[in-house]
Amino acid sequence: MKAVILSIGDELVLGQNVDTNSAWMSARLAALGVMTVYHQTIADDLDATARAVRDAAAAADLVLVTGGLGPTADDLTREALAKVLGTELELHAASLERIRAFFLQLGRPMAETNRVQALCPRGAEMLHNEWGTAPGLRCRVGSALLLAFPGVPREMKGMFDRYLVPALAGQTGRTILTEAVRTFGAGESNVAERLGELMRRDRNPMLGTTASGGVITVRVRSDFPDGEAARRALDETCAEIERRLGTLVYGRGETTLQAAAGALLAARRRTVVTVEICTGGLVASLLTDVPGSSAYMLGGWVVYANDMKAREMDVPPEMLAAHGAVSEPVARALAEGGRRRAGADYSLAVTGIAGPAGGSDQKPVGTVWIALARPAGPTLAARHQFPGDRDMVRDRAAKTALNLLRQELLAFGQGEVA
Amino acid sequence: MKAVILSIGDELVLGQNVDTNSAWMSARLAALGVMTVYHQTIADDLDATARAVRDAAAAADLVLVTGGLGPTADDLTREALAKVLGTELELHAASLERIRAFFLQLGRPMAETNRVQALCPRGAEMLHNEWGTAPGLRCRVGSALLLAFPGVPREMKGMFDRYLVPALAGQTGRTILTEAVRTFGAGESNVAERLGELMRRDRNPMLGTTASGGVITVRVRSDFPDGEAARRALDETCAEIERRLGTLVYGRGETTLQAAAGALLAARRRTVVTVEICTGGLVASLLTDVPGSSAYMLGGWVVYANDMKAREMDVPPEMLAAHGAVSEPVARALAEGGRRRAGADYSLAVTGIAGPAGGSDQKPVGTVWIALARPAGPTLAARHQFPGDRDMVRDRAAKTALNLLRQELLAFGQGEVA
Repeated sequence: MKAVILSIGDELVLGQNVDTNSAWMSARLAALGVMTVYHQTIADDLDATARAVRDAAAAADLVLVTGGLGPTADDLTREALAKVLGTELELHAASLERIRAFFLQLGRPMAETNRVQALCPRGAEMLHNEWGTAPGLRCRVGSALLLAFPGVPREMKGMFDRYLVPALAGQTGRTILTEAVRTFGAGESNVAERLGELMRRDRNPMLGTTASGGVITVRVRSDFPDGEAARRALDETCAEIERRLGTLVYGRGETTLQAAAGALLAARRRTVVTVEICTGGLVASLLTDVPGSSAYMLGGWVVYANDMKAREMDVPPEMLAAHGAVSEPVARALAEGGRRRAGADYSLAVTGIAGPAGGSDQKPVGTVWIALARPAGPTLAARHQFPGDRDMVRDRAAKTALNLLRQELLAFGQGEVA
Repeated sequence: MKAVILSIGDELVLGQNVDTNSAWMSARLAALGVMTVYHQTIADDLDATARAVRDAAAAADLVLVTGGLGPTADDLTREALAKVLGTELELHAASLERIRAFFLQLGRPMAETNRVQALCPRGAEMLHNEWGTAPGLRCRVGSALLLAFPGVPREMKGMFDRYLVPALAGQTGRTILTEAVRTFGAGESNVAERLGELMRRDRNPMLGTTASGGVITVRVRSDFPDGEAARRALDETCAEIERRLGTLVYGRGETTLQAAAGALLAARRRTVVTVEICTGGLVASLLTDVPGSSAYMLGGWVVYANDMKAREMDVPPEMLAAHGAVSEPVARALAEGGRRRAGADYSLAVTGIAGPAGGSDQKPVGTVWIALARPAGPTLAARHQFPGDRDMVRDRAAKTALNLLRQELLAFGQGEVA
């Protein structure tokens, strides 16, 4: 089965936005056994869109369109499909009601311009969008199946999974299953070395590694005619990867470091607080983005101003004056102050220089002290030097802190929890 | 002058990499007065590449190709061009010498596989690549000018500026300038209604709106023969947009809500703290992701556990028992507690139900109270109902809080700051 992906929008063709939807959809299609032939990005132009749809339907069995379903005059996908189908646009009453209801729920009246989003080319079917106001569309163009989704990534992804995945299941005659094994704490070449001959290009399941934001992901792709064989081979390969990489692995699929650390906290009935300077609330924000995190997250402090460090965390002003806020004694004092104050089991403290200003020869931008106060044993503290700009330093510092907590909980679990 | 951009590579069509080259080139072309008609991404396939080149040359005056110039068997751009031109590949001695010299400089011998990079379709011209081993190509396909660059972004960008920019200078007879005006606090259709006839498709500068994460962006495209006229029309249109949308607009270009609020805090020499429940540190994290935010950000609290709300923010336990944490009195008490405690000018508090659990009939998931304690006047507090899942509720709540602070600082500025 072959697919073509069309992305509609002036902002894409003008280079104001990068089209990330096409890559996401292609990757998902590949996992479902559908080969993407090409992507095309077209301006908000009726004739160009209609022409691109016709060409795509001639080249593929499946045509996916994103964008051009909004409420404004530059949203022309509905009209372009009507043109290709040689039909008219009709008002779809149920969609209009849903759009009205969506606005009602937000406590706002529906603007008249949103009416156009309820227009459907005759011969096409409306797809309900529970994430936004723009319904999708489904129709046949010649022998090809076409689905049109909104360009907003969250809405597109929701509708892809809702409407396309079930329609494709079992149609392609082969089963391609994929899994992602997530690791943190080692570089890509180091991970690849530990995987050894598992990385051979002629292996099935086949492995590949990608690096993003300090996370090294091992992607596994199992490709068999038989679904059960594909599943068994995938599971065996993933288990072998996990055996070779040990505690570098924090999970599979879409798991995050915060979810992995959170699951360990919940399983061991332990609590945590955070005390942050350079990450400015990022560690707390990550910990609390996990549903159910109130079971173990008591809270946290961001102590940017020096008198907040002293008043909230009892850091002696002499210590700050002698060592500076980015120092081992202050990192320890912050972690221990937060733990004591909240009566928590664990307390993570992060103090560093995120930049662009504030660096020095002794403490260049990227210098970060991370400390972990814990129920037993002395407070752990380590100095790190992270590369990159402010965003990157903050991101790596937060992830390294979460990983420290995770590793500590894993070590603590040995022998104490079955 | 019209352009088509072709990106060649299995990794792009499979969705393993996002194509950022096309957006970069389109933006640069637009600034040079060249309108991109479409982008197309094609697999490493000889026939598909040749067909795409022919179609592109028929649709545009300028065809830019990236990728497929590497040394391995899947790099087929050279052969595809020879096929389109109906000629053979010939060894280009000067290019071979340059490739050898490039490796010599790295202290390595040239691998035999790199020889193919010195092959040139007869009738085309080799373009020296000083950033890597793959030379580019330039030729005419019918009436269109075609340039092929390597896919490595750094090499592509270097060659674009070296070979294309001088060739286009003064040839296009037009200048296209773009700007993005960012708004928060109203829906896309509402923004479009307020812009009225500015949204007409036949207008120049032309407007388009896009929605992402609650931010509605008005994109403006000014297209004139004369650069000065394009700039003047762009400025006038942006000013008119800002007049019509008023304080909904928080900035132009890549500005964020936190940068806009931060700039106002800095200009007015005011300080801020945050007290968060459902956003769990996200508001603090956003405020501190702005370089220089330590000038106005004193710090913040995440008070997840009830006894932290009481102990850190002096919220009376009876108030919590009577109204619950997600309530107007608690939101006000948190904001005022944080402001008092830190001696800050402003204090933002966010308490709500991010989900998936915790909702009720009276307070469904998405219910969020946001309060702002301030130097003069009573504490502001409002109830919001945000749609979507946990991530979306947290994201919208954090942005709405930052926008409340921004709006308050704007109002405070009236009359007090010139």
